[in-house]
Amino acid sequence: MSGTTPWATSVTELLGIDVPVVLAPMGGGPCTPGLVAAVSNAGGLGFLAAGYLSADRIEANIDEVRRLTSAPFGVNLFADTPPVADPAAIERAVAVIGPLRQELGLPARAAIPSYAQSLAEQLEAVVAVRPAAVSFTFGLLAPAAVDSLHAAGCIVIGTATTVAEAVAIESSGADGVCVQGADAAAHRGTFLRNASDSLVGTLSLVPQVCDAVSIPVVASGGVMDGRGLAAVLALGAGGAQLGTAFLRCPEAGTSKPYREALAAACDTSTALTSAVTGRMARGIENRLMRALAGFDVPPYPVMNAITAELRQEAGRRGDAGLMSLWCGQGVALGTELPAADLVRQIASESATILAKMVALVAGQTPR
Amino acid sequence: MSGTTPWATSVTELLGIDVPVVLAPMGGGPCTPGLVAAVSNAGGLGFLAAGYLSADRIEANIDEVRRLTSAPFGVNLFADTPPVADPAAIERAVAVIGPLRQELGLPARAAIPSYAQSLAEQLEAVVAVRPAAVSFTFGLLAPAAVDSLHAAGCIVIGTATTVAEAVAIESSGADGVCVQGADAAAHRGTFLRNASDSLVGTLSLVPQVCDAVSIPVVASGGVMDGRGLAAVLALGAGGAQLGTAFLRCPEAGTSKPYREALAAACDTSTALTSAVTGRMARGIENRLMRALAGFDVPPYPVMNAITAELRQEAGRRGDAGLMSLWCGQGVALGTELPAADLVRQIASESATILAKMVALVAGQTPR
Repeated sequence: MSGTTPWATSVTELLGIDVPVVLAPMGGGPCTPGLVAAVSNAGGLGFLAAGYLSADRIEANIDEVRRLTSAPFGVNLFADTPPVADPAAIERAVAVIGPLRQELGLPARAAIPSYAQSLAEQLEAVVAVRPAAVSFTFGLLAPAAVDSLHAAGCIVIGTATTVAEAVAIESSGADGVCVQGADAAAHRGTFLRNASDSLVGTLSLVPQVCDAVSIPVVASGGVMDGRGLAAVLALGAGGAQLGTAFLRCPEAGTSKPYREALAAACDTSTALTSAVTGRMARGIENRLMRALAGFDVPPYPVMNAITAELRQEAGRRGDAGLMSLWCGQGVALGTELPAADLVRQIASESATILAKMVALVAGQTPR
Repeated sequence: MSGTTPWATSVTELLGIDVPVVLAPMGGGPCTPGLVAAVSNAGGLGFLAAGYLSADRIEANIDEVRRLTSAPFGVNLFADTPPVADPAAIERAVAVIGPLRQELGLPARAAIPSYAQSLAEQLEAVVAVRPAAVSFTFGLLAPAAVDSLHAAGCIVIGTATTVAEAVAIESSGADGVCVQGADAAAHRGTFLRNASDSLVGTLSLVPQVCDAVSIPVVASGGVMDGRGLAAVLALGAGGAQLGTAFLRCPEAGTSKPYREALAAACDTSTALTSAVTGRMARGIENRLMRALAGFDVPPYPVMNAITAELRQEAGRRGDAGLMSLWCGQGVALGTELPAADLVRQIASESATILAKMVALVAGQTPR
C-alpha cells in the first residue's frame, strides 16, 4: 500500500502492514477517520478509538474509514469493569468543578453524560464489520470475546503497563501486546496494580516484556520519530505505537488551543494526574490539573464524564488551562507533517539510523 | 585494551575507549577499584565514585586502580552546594530513626558523621593525579574548576536529568553530558528544578538532549544489556552508562542482602523516595522507604549522613528492609557475570542486534 518493500518484523507480519508504525487509538477526537486512513494508506496501521463510541457510531466510523482506505486498520475498545459510583463522591466532584464551569459561562452544575458504553454491544458491532485488528485497554477481554474476534478474522492486541499484565494478556489468548511505558501520553492502561506502582519507563519495560512473552510486542511511550522506532526495535519490539507524534497532523481532530500547547511544550511540561478523569493520565500540566490536585474524585469513567463538558467548552473558547492536554514525554519532538508523510519519514529515518549504526560497531564495515 | 577493533562513536572517541560502555559511579561501596579496573580493562570506562571520599582517599583509590589497569578510567565528584542544616529538622530526623536503630542494637541517637567533603580539596587531588575523565553530579562545576581539569588533561562530563540541565552543562564548558532518565537507579542528579518535576523517561529524554547540545551524550537509566545499548545509540547517544547492571558482578562491593534483593526484583519492584537521604533516589521499595514516607527530612547530604549508620548496620546484619537498595527499573535483567565478561557481552550482543535489525528494514538485505 505504501509502494515500498515491506519491513519484516513480528508486528508487520502479524498485522499485514508494510512499516512497523501503529497509530495510538486516542479517544475523544484526535483519531478522525481521515487520520486513521492516512496512516494505513502510508503502510502503517491506523486505529479508531472506539471505547467512548456506541455500537452505531463504531459502525459509521468504520464505514467512513473504509471509504478512505482499503488497507488494514484497527479498532480499540475498553475492557474495564464499570465502577460502582458513590453518589456522595459524585456530588463532591460536581461541586468542586462548579466554579470552573461558571467561569466559562456554563451552569455550575454539570449534566453528567452517560459514561459507559456496553462492551458487549461494541464487540457485536466490531465482529460484524471485521476490522483487521482489535485492541483493548484497561483490562482483559473474556475468552469468549477473544474467540468471537478470532472467528471474525481479527488480530487481537491487549495493552500492558507491566510484565505481569503482558503475561496475563498473552494467557487471555491475545495475538500481540502493546506495552505502554511510563513516558506515554494520556490514560495509563494499568489493570493489575495501582497505576502509581506501575510506572516503568519504556526503555526499561520493553525488553523485560519481550523476555516474558512469546507474542509480538508493540512498544509505546516516548516514540516520536525514526530514532524512537529504531530504539524499540533494538529493545526487541516488533513495532511502535505513536499517539503524540500524530496529534499535530492536519488530519488529527486536535483543537487549536491543544495544538498550540503541544507546539510550546518541552521535555518537562507533562505531569501525571488521577484527578481530571479518575484514572491516572499524562498530559501538559495546566490549571485544571493543579486545581484538582489531591482531590479524592470518583473513579474513571465517572469523573471523566463529570469534567467532560468543562474541558470541551474550554477547548471551544481557546482556554488551554481548563482542557485535558494529554501527551507523552516526547511531545517536544512533534511536527506538523501530514500523517502519511510522517509515517514515511519515521520509517526512512529509522532505516537510515540502523544502517549508520552498523558502521559504528567494531569489526563491521559501513554499508 | 579489549583486544578487539574499537567502536567508533562520539563517546568512544571522546574518551579513548574501545566499547561505548561506561560504569556508573555508584557511591557507598559498589565501585571498588577492582570493578573500575575490570570495566576499563575490557575496553569500557570504569568510574570511581569519589563524591563521598576525602582527597587522601581519592588518591589512594586511584593508585589502586592504576595498579590494576593502564586503561583510561574516570572519577566522579559531587558539584552540589552544601545545604544550610536546620538544627530542629535534624533533631526530628534523629528522633524518627531512633527506634529503627534500636531494633538493630545501635544506640537510639545517631552519631552524625561529617557529611560533606571539600570539593576544592577533592578537585586538587584529582588534578594532581590526572584521571582520563572526571564527571560531576548534582550541579555545575565553576569555570575555573573546568579549566584546571582541562589543563590536567581530563575529559569533563556533567550529569543532566532535563534538556535545560544538559544545555547548562554544555555552556559550563564540559566535554560531554551524561543523561539520567527517570528509569535510572539511585540519586537523581537534578539541579535546576524540583526532582519530582524532572522525571523524564530515558527513551524520551535522550533524543531531546541530543537535539539540544552538540557535545557527546552518554545515556543512563534502564540500560542493562546489548538491547539497551543498541537502543540508546539509535536515540543518538554515543554510549551508555550502566550501574545496576554491574551491581551483581563478583568485583562489585555489593553486600549479600543487597545482591539477594536485586536477584529477586521485578519490573515494578522499585520506587522513588526523597526521605531516606534527603534527595530523590530510586531503589527497591522496602520497609525503610515506607517508614520514612512523607516525612519532611533535612536536605541531602544531611539526611544521608543521619541514616548512614542504620543502613550500614542493616547490611551487616542481612536486614534488607532497613538498607538502601538503590537500583534502576531494568534491575530484573541483571546477571552475575564478571565485569569484563559483561562488558564484552553487552558489546557483542549490541553488535549482533544492529546487524540483525538492518535485515528487517525495507529494501535492505540481510548481512
